[in-house]
Amino acid sequence: MKLKAMINSLNTNLDIQKSETSKIENVDFENLAFGRTFTDHMFVCDFIDGKWQQPKIMPYQAMTFEPSARVFHYGQAVFEGMKAYKDNAGKIWLFRPEANHKRINISSARLAMPEFPKDYFFAGLETLLKMDKEWIQPGIGNSLYIRPFVIATEPAISASPASTYRFMIICSPAKAYYSGKVRVLFAEKYSRSADGGVGFAKASGNYAAQFYPTSLAQEKGYQQIIWTDAHTHEYLEEAGTMNIFFRIDDRLVTAPTSDRILDGITRKSIIQLAEDNGVTVEIRRVPVTEIKEAARNGSLKEIFGAGTAAVVSPISAFEHGNEVFEIPDLENSYASKFKKQLQDIQHNLSEDKHGWRHEVK
Amino acid sequence: MKLKAMINSLNTNLDIQKSETSKIENVDFENLAFGRTFTDHMFVCDFIDGKWQQPKIMPYQAMTFEPSARVFHYGQAVFEGMKAYKDNAGKIWLFRPEANHKRINISSARLAMPEFPKDYFFAGLETLLKMDKEWIQPGIGNSLYIRPFVIATEPAISASPASTYRFMIICSPAKAYYSGKVRVLFAEKYSRSADGGVGFAKASGNYAAQFYPTSLAQEKGYQQIIWTDAHTHEYLEEAGTMNIFFRIDDRLVTAPTSDRILDGITRKSIIQLAEDNGVTVEIRRVPVTEIKEAARNGSLKEIFGAGTAAVVSPISAFEHGNEVFEIPDLENSYASKFKKQLQDIQHNLSEDKHGWRHEVK
Ligand SMILES: Cc1ncc(COP(=O)(O)O)c(C=O)c1O
Ligand SMILES: Cc1ncc(COP(=O)(O)O)c(C=O)c1O
Repeated sequence: MKLKAMINSLNTNLDIQKSETSKIENVDFENLAFGRTFTDHMFVCDFIDGKWQQPKIMPYQAMTFEPSARVFHYGQAVFEGMKAYKDNAGKIWLFRPEANHKRINISSARLAMPEFPKDYFFAGLETLLKMDKEWIQPGIGNSLYIRPFVIATEPAISASPASTYRFMIICSPAKAYYSGKVRVLFAEKYSRSADGGVGFAKASGNYAAQFYPTSLAQEKGYQQIIWTDAHTHEYLEEAGTMNIFFRIDDRLVTAPTSDRILDGITRKSIIQLAEDNGVTVEIRRVPVTEIKEAARNGSLKEIFGAGTAAVVSPISAFEHGNEVFEIPDLENSYASKFKKQLQDIQHNLSEDKHGWRHEVK
Repeated sequence: MKLKAMINSLNTNLDIQKSETSKIENVDFENLAFGRTFTDHMFVCDFIDGKWQQPKIMPYQAMTFEPSARVFHYGQAVFEGMKAYKDNAGKIWLFRPEANHKRINISSARLAMPEFPKDYFFAGLETLLKMDKEWIQPGIGNSLYIRPFVIATEPAISASPASTYRFMIICSPAKAYYSGKVRVLFAEKYSRSADGGVGFAKASGNYAAQFYPTSLAQEKGYQQIIWTDAHTHEYLEEAGTMNIFFRIDDRLVTAPTSDRILDGITRKSIIQLAEDNGVTVEIRRVPVTEIKEAARNGSLKEIFGAGTAAVVSPISAFEHGNEVFEIPDLENSYASKFKKQLQDIQHNLSEDKHGWRHEVK
């Protein structure tokens, strides 16, 4: 209620420049490649002289940057990934958006970047969604992917935090991110993050660091890597853009969050849904040896990834130590059950007993 | 010789647009803040359709980027730092530039980015330096800092390597980077890089990750952190932009390079100079406990950083485990001796027996 009031008062303070035409007529919503098509507008707010300036919504467009902008040199860049859904009545919904706002500020703080105020975040986000609401397609699997991000703009290449930043939100219509089942490699040599590092932040550098090892995995026929702890490679942590769950018999096992692991909103929600469904969840270290043994003796029923982009992504095989383990298909899997429950909440098709849905109106 | 021929043949193929006026008249060379003033021109080459396109030199200027450019989201960005010097006869010199070219490609490969051809690199670099030669001030301590970098430009926010990149070189006139002695904190909690990670690459994300821990150190009165291994924090590795040497009695000790540590060109050169001077160099793990004990019993004579920006940077004190160790001033220090030897080679004031100098003509 308080938040709504703030947003309304702020809306009037947004500097809004509407696009004269819409690009939507040219979009083939049936054939969308992820993250290549953007809506008509974007939200922009600059941090200058120690404070966030006038927030603006303007036509989606290229922008000029100095070649010396800090983001190009020292990687001060963080982002979020969230989605808007449209229900059958045409209402627009977000899923736990306050968690994204909180997390982008956690990421920013770790990279010595300024936090973005909650009222600006929601005013910008909701106004943008209302202006571009035609871009949100109804139906399960359809969504508008929302990308808030912050980058260091100061034109000076000394290795220290910038004094100017830009916060932006851009939006891209999306279908499900992964199609089909995913085969993964358990990491044995490369790693994603260090103790005392920035793995828990959605920091841009964490992603580029994964591309090369992932390309090696892809050459071997695996789409993704499940990262293990950097020191021993004995414990399973998370995938590139998903947290990971293991179902052993009827228990669900997942690694605890730490400074190496992103505190995923889908992960948190699945843990809650599992508890609601009476499924035991064990949040603890997950030894590679245990998962291999469970695969051998048949108690490993499922592995699945959890993240905003793919919601839930079943994993059909993994390789470790040059051994390949196939995970048999399962009827009534937890993956499909929790995916459906989550999507039903997201699309306003079922009761929302934890108050996760947030209407944009 | 072969390289020279290539460069000459390539020079004619550079697309050159000269600046109509120079900004140099407005520059106060006595009061330069590091990395804020740029010369009149820059070098730009785009990677599109699987190959590097026509390389260009153009007036230094802001450029447009899509908000969805991969560099803003996934940190595919690497860079180099090198310097050009002018001798008293007005000749222009680079220091081991082939090592920078090699290293930027090592960095790029680790981030799944395309390597930049050596002939383009040298043609662009040398032509640029000749065009902006007025910006290189003679005299020890003066230089033109050169920043080659590569960024992912493809406008698509899927978490995978980009298909388009931009290689650039920008230049900034510089005085010595650090003034005065440096007090440092040995890392006990935060870390810079993981085994199997990207610490050995000049990847943008490695730098942003250090800013917040460094700001905490600065609040305690330390300018820099010396990073330790992420797992135990028991071994000293390197600083944010410098490799680190410890002088114990008359021996010089430094950590071996690894996938966590940048293979610094200044480091390599100092190891060679030390050998030339008959100083024993031990390249091995450096336990924090050993350095503290050596500080206590007086055998720790010096600690200094080594890197292109500062050349050699003496460290006057360190803190670890809430204990502060002051390192007494030393006449005829290795730091000042090797700094002078290096600078004399760089500025064409002494014999260059290892062939490190490279004339730009
Ligand atoms: C590294 C990483 N792990 C996990 C996730 C899943 O987080 P969420 O469920 O909040 O989307 C993401 C983001 O999408 C991620 O980037
Ligand atoms: C992390 C790091 N270590 C060490 C160095 C020193 O390397 P070089 O001597 O090649 O400048 C640098 C770069 O300047 C660096 O960024």
